[in-house]
Amino acid sequence: MAKNGKRILVALGGNAIKQAHEKGTAEEQFRNVYTTAKHLVNMIEHLGKDDRLIITHGNGPQAGNLALQQDIAKDVVPPQPLDVVGAMTQGQIGYMLQQCLENIMMEKGMKVPVVAIVNQVLVDKNDPEFFGENASKPVGNFLTEEEAMKMKAEKGWIVKKVKPNAPKPWRRVVPSPDPIANVEADVIKILVDSGVVVIASGGGGIPVIKEDGRLVGVEAVIDKDLAGERLAEVVEADIFLILTDVEKAKLNFGKPDEKEIDRMTVSEAKKYLAEGHFLPGSMGPKVKACIRFLEWGGKEAIITSLDKAVEALEGRTGTHIVKD
Amino acid sequence: MAKNGKRILVALGGNAIKQAHEKGTAEEQFRNVYTTAKHLVNMIEHLGKDDRLIITHGNGPQAGNLALQQDIAKDVVPPQPLDVVGAMTQGQIGYMLQQCLENIMMEKGMKVPVVAIVNQVLVDKNDPEFFGENASKPVGNFLTEEEAMKMKAEKGWIVKKVKPNAPKPWRRVVPSPDPIANVEADVIKILVDSGVVVIASGGGGIPVIKEDGRLVGVEAVIDKDLAGERLAEVVEADIFLILTDVEKAKLNFGKPDEKEIDRMTVSEAKKYLAEGHFLPGSMGPKVKACIRFLEWGGKEAIITSLDKAVEALEGRTGTHIVKD
Repeated sequence: MAKNGKRILVALGGNAIKQAHEKGTAEEQFRNVYTTAKHLVNMIEHLGKDDRLIITHGNGPQAGNLALQQDIAKDVVPPQPLDVVGAMTQGQIGYMLQQCLENIMMEKGMKVPVVAIVNQVLVDKNDPEFFGENASKPVGNFLTEEEAMKMKAEKGWIVKKVKPNAPKPWRRVVPSPDPIANVEADVIKILVDSGVVVIASGGGGIPVIKEDGRLVGVEAVIDKDLAGERLAEVVEADIFLILTDVEKAKLNFGKPDEKEIDRMTVSEAKKYLAEGHFLPGSMGPKVKACIRFLEWGGKEAIITSLDKAVEALEGRTGTHIVKD
Repeated sequence: MAKNGKRILVALGGNAIKQAHEKGTAEEQFRNVYTTAKHLVNMIEHLGKDDRLIITHGNGPQAGNLALQQDIAKDVVPPQPLDVVGAMTQGQIGYMLQQCLENIMMEKGMKVPVVAIVNQVLVDKNDPEFFGENASKPVGNFLTEEEAMKMKAEKGWIVKKVKPNAPKPWRRVVPSPDPIANVEADVIKILVDSGVVVIASGGGGIPVIKEDGRLVGVEAVIDKDLAGERLAEVVEADIFLILTDVEKAKLNFGKPDEKEIDRMTVSEAKKYLAEGHFLPGSMGPKVKACIRFLEWGGKEAIITSLDKAVEALEGRTGTHIVKD
């Protein structure tokens, strides 16, 4: 089916589902997701008949909580590996988003089908993140040196001292390989072409490698913005909208001369990235994902906060990344 | 889109994913699901170009394990309610089924898209199962009287003495309301019409009621065969195939004169059900789901074991339920 209308890929940050100070009860998460869904439905209302919204989301706090529950109960119930944990959080967060979107649209008398899908993302088994101590993504709880060494010995975890002066300075780190392709691309295209609001690639997607011609899940976590960019390619998105906790990306972040960025070209974004203006594991991968999107052929990438999403789409705020 | 070809709704039993004696490691479950997926792909190979297979599955052991993990870790991480637990197992089992189906089809050079979706099933908030001590579905661990009374007092659980002479005779019971409708019916129709093998209504679906015009998740577990029958209606299935651990349903089950049933009409099935030939919580709801399917307008319902599925579809084994 040929593409009509405009397509917007929205990548939701962790705060869209769980606030940092919250424990993560279902009530808290449904309340946050309901607010998030209101903003998303606002966007859908602003779209034309042939325009489409496609949604992806992070899963850090939910995967962290689930892995912790599994670890605490490990003598009674076998813990599931990270690929399965990722799949479980796709079910959990997908459900909350799907139900809240459906409810808000019902209240407004809108009839737009919504669905969250189970979605794998392919990575390269030779990705450098899988080798030696290259793994870079901290997951789960902070640990004492003793706890860290125990897990290293018992389970072969890679552990790193991520907060040198804290009482529990260590954390498990897992590979964060670069996403190559979205495995269920065909299904996603069918759904988007049919007018369904699709929630996909949740938590960066379930990480899988290809081995002897088969897909195999791996203990890894894919960056959700980089995976979201691959999803944007699948749906031929025009706009890649990354929603986070700040209204704009900043130059000289955290320094006295820090300055909000309204607009940057791909070349400028690459230069700023190389100069270290954007934190790795935070704004860094977001800007990287935007650059990749524009180099693939996307029209515009925007980084802003959830509550400014509609304004940013209208060009009135946010950091806009455009072609040179 | 008008329906072409034949549609088969397959409902997988718990043993398709986890054997009773297993603890439920990811390895064990992937091994079982791989075997299950082989049988399913066999069926797909036997289908014509316009025929479709639609899959649903149980989640008892997975939801039980997850609820237990959440309970053990409850002082550290807030446990999620049963609707969210159901959604999480849809992600977990959906992932395993989807990946195994994709792998087997890749090996055979077949190109059929597969997807598991997050799927809610509507129940009536006035269903008798929600009132008093009517709840009938045992979930989670067996408990001592002391443990049972503690949970009853602390959390308002309904507990029942389900194994009178066992050391831990008590268990939590939750409402098992009758499924009314599949919430994501529109999306499922689009996918099936487009040739996608859909995995839906997992674990009987995420149970939701309508309250003040909104969907709200409830602490309940819907029977997966009855929910599967609603899914069969959505996709206009011709055949409803329930796969369980026996090749045929039996009359006088467990008695000296027990006798396998090859074929029964709806009237006969109703009579046998009323006479108590089929165990509640086991063969009972399966036969009930088959009766409902035929009364809705389905052509044929079959109850058999996973490894006999293709033979049963060819009419060579299984219990076949047909119109009068």
